[in-house]
Amino acid sequence: MKRYEALAHKMAESIASGQLRPGDRVQSVREASRSHGVSPSTVFEAYYLLEARGLIEARPRSGYFVSHAATKQAEPDASAPHADGRQVEVSELVFQVLGHAKNRTMAPLGSAFPSPTLFPLPKLALSLGKALRRLDPWRTVEDLSPGSAALRRQIGLRYLAMSCGVDTEELVITNGAMEALNLCLEAVTKPGDLVAVESPTFYAALQALERRGLRAVEVATHPRTGVDVNALASVLERHPVKACWFMPNFQNPLGSLMPDSAKQNLVELLAKHQVPLIEDDVYGELYFGSQKPKPAKAWDRDGLVMHCSSFSKTLAPGYRVGWTAAGRFTQDVARRKLMSSLAAPLPSQEGLNEYLQHGGYDRHLRQLRAKLAKQRHVALRGIAKCFPAGTRVTQPEGGYFVWVELPKSVDALELHRLALSHDISLAPGHLFSADHRYEHHVRINFGHPDDGKFEAALKTVGAIAKALV
Amino acid sequence: MKRYEALAHKMAESIASGQLRPGDRVQSVREASRSHGVSPSTVFEAYYLLEARGLIEARPRSGYFVSHAATKQAEPDASAPHADGRQVEVSELVFQVLGHAKNRTMAPLGSAFPSPTLFPLPKLALSLGKALRRLDPWRTVEDLSPGSAALRRQIGLRYLAMSCGVDTEELVITNGAMEALNLCLEAVTKPGDLVAVESPTFYAALQALERRGLRAVEVATHPRTGVDVNALASVLERHPVKACWFMPNFQNPLGSLMPDSAKQNLVELLAKHQVPLIEDDVYGELYFGSQKPKPAKAWDRDGLVMHCSSFSKTLAPGYRVGWTAAGRFTQDVARRKLMSSLAAPLPSQEGLNEYLQHGGYDRHLRQLRAKLAKQRHVALRGIAKCFPAGTRVTQPEGGYFVWVELPKSVDALELHRLALSHDISLAPGHLFSADHRYEHHVRINFGHPDDGKFEAALKTVGAIAKALV
Repeated sequence: MKRYEALAHKMAESIASGQLRPGDRVQSVREASRSHGVSPSTVFEAYYLLEARGLIEARPRSGYFVSHAATKQAEPDASAPHADGRQVEVSELVFQVLGHAKNRTMAPLGSAFPSPTLFPLPKLALSLGKALRRLDPWRTVEDLSPGSAALRRQIGLRYLAMSCGVDTEELVITNGAMEALNLCLEAVTKPGDLVAVESPTFYAALQALERRGLRAVEVATHPRTGVDVNALASVLERHPVKACWFMPNFQNPLGSLMPDSAKQNLVELLAKHQVPLIEDDVYGELYFGSQKPKPAKAWDRDGLVMHCSSFSKTLAPGYRVGWTAAGRFTQDVARRKLMSSLAAPLPSQEGLNEYLQHGGYDRHLRQLRAKLAKQRHVALRGIAKCFPAGTRVTQPEGGYFVWVELPKSVDALELHRLALSHDISLAPGHLFSADHRYEHHVRINFGHPDDGKFEAALKTVGAIAKALV
Repeated sequence: MKRYEALAHKMAESIASGQLRPGDRVQSVREASRSHGVSPSTVFEAYYLLEARGLIEARPRSGYFVSHAATKQAEPDASAPHADGRQVEVSELVFQVLGHAKNRTMAPLGSAFPSPTLFPLPKLALSLGKALRRLDPWRTVEDLSPGSAALRRQIGLRYLAMSCGVDTEELVITNGAMEALNLCLEAVTKPGDLVAVESPTFYAALQALERRGLRAVEVATHPRTGVDVNALASVLERHPVKACWFMPNFQNPLGSLMPDSAKQNLVELLAKHQVPLIEDDVYGELYFGSQKPKPAKAWDRDGLVMHCSSFSKTLAPGYRVGWTAAGRFTQDVARRKLMSSLAAPLPSQEGLNEYLQHGGYDRHLRQLRAKLAKQRHVALRGIAKCFPAGTRVTQPEGGYFVWVELPKSVDALELHRLALSHDISLAPGHLFSADHRYEHHVRINFGHPDDGKFEAALKTVGAIAKALV
């Protein structure tokens, strides 16, 4: 962490803890420079960052003040799903609802992807071109599964950097995280089995269960800290759960982040029951805090955690390169990969390997995180300003989604339909649970910084929602 | 077809029909030029082609003669599998047997891939680089499934060229043909269902069935003409077959080619029973005759044929771009693609689209076919010369496999083990049927032209086999 980031983080903590309150004047640059022992330009950079995140604001000729928008808005309550296993039938609805949101003029608040303009695609293309120019033809028939050894080494280095022991031999490269998650699920379940998911959960997890004929049991979550491990313990006591599919870091749709202690408890609980965890960690790199959150995998001693991630949300959308560190299931998953689609694309793998070595991935990630953190502020400010009274919203510390709970009278599917007629997409809450219980919730994607279009769309959605109250 | 190719084809037919016999003198260049009304250089090119294919040979100062190796060697008999459905358990054996064959020094007679040196990889890399330089970032989130519209148009044009009506809208791009085949299988079967496959059949088809918990019923084949449609009719009368998975063109491992009339009968029979056909056509472009064989899909009127192919064996190994034209199942397959791995890799798709438009695919294919046809001759000559008496072998008109039936006393697994110790891989016949019945058969890959290494390996395998008789 750079010096200015450390300073910004310290001040953000003071604001979060209430030590500094909305309207309070922040130290002047000169004062802060002196008291923290850093240069004035470091203070400027820190303040700029805090301003971008909406935590402080400059008032002309008066200095910096803690922003009123920095106060926490009301969060949704912890979820309380039915705790019984049930058939999953959500796919048809997902395709119906999301199939519409395809034209470019649309404000993509319902999209699952961040803006493709956030990624260094030209630089990646150069890396790919360079790698392919020196490609040995025999590489096309080697490493089919588990994938490029060089790329697996690069990925292994990133695990090492977060003190999560993953051997290169444990990694299997896949066509994006989606394939990794599906293969892991296949490795540890049979049709008819019961799988625990978060409530709410990412609809693609529900679709994967439905596709394989699995039943879902939903586990209570907290909007800030994710899976309620006690609730899970009670589910495990009562049901023959064959696997869990969770997102401990910046859960989709909540944006929740499980604290380290909860991750440890989770892994220990699952070890006790010998239940595998399929850990979907595609947003872990998109943190707004000072440190990359560890995956639950970091506490795994039994090889039961199958950690899945990809470059699609952090660097290279469209390249279709993901992976899993699949613990004791690694060989099984590598074979299933071979049987399902043989190998991951070699040009993409070679390009990413080259970029990871020489492209400046960490610099890109810092810029990306700063942009998303700023957009989070824009989203929370817009929702606070424009949405109906009684609206609750999550305050994610990473990723690019907020989960919005509207007044009970607002039907999210109707809101979605009306928004579509204004060329705005939304992801209605119905999609995020097997029993379609989140009827007055929407997931909003704030990962599209674009000169006011996003804010205008929030304003329109807010006005429609108010009319539905 | 170029003029010299037409002439070569005409002469090849005269040889195949017995009109010209081994040892017969072929017309001199001057005579042929006059009688066929073509230039002497055209005749030279035609003779060069025939010589490369082993059909004629030049004798110093005497002219050209029909080669003795051009006579048909004995073919294996038509297969006669058990006609009952059975559980498939072949995967473990496949991984055990083929897992060894990974080092580069090995003569890859057991490989499923042609030599990567046969493909225009540098030119493809240029196409890919060019396409990525002008890539619109928004393309990374569009066309996820069914895939790039531009590439689908290019593929559609190739169907048009073989008078097989496939609309662009019917195409779904996948991660290679393997994923296409798996998704098609998933679309039309449930675990426990019965699927008809050829006997022998490609082990990956058996693995796909095993992975999905399907049972197989094997259908008799002829080594030259593939699936016995009458045998299939009787299977369909007696069993509730939910799908067929066949390779009408240059079947793996036989190399057999179903005649047009048989393809038509097949499609009509399946329409009568309303049974979908999963048509694996990855070798169709690798024909040695004068014309690309049509897929069975060309006779489909009911949308029951799901035609699957890829660029992996013809142009771009490692790029992982395949597709299916899935008839009435197209939307279902496109959705399954989205759920299983979201999208095919964009860099690969863009590169192939650019190459197909400007790269000279047809010229490359002509060269590739000529090289493989020549290698077929090398293979048949080597087997005739070095393998034990009583060996039978298929005479494929395309692709890069021959199927060798050795004397009954030769155990193919033992032959495989002994060959491995000489750094030669083989694909033992055990892998190619659910009941492991092809115990004294091997599939030999002749797609690796490489200055004598292949011939030396055939000689070694022949010697080992003779010792086992």
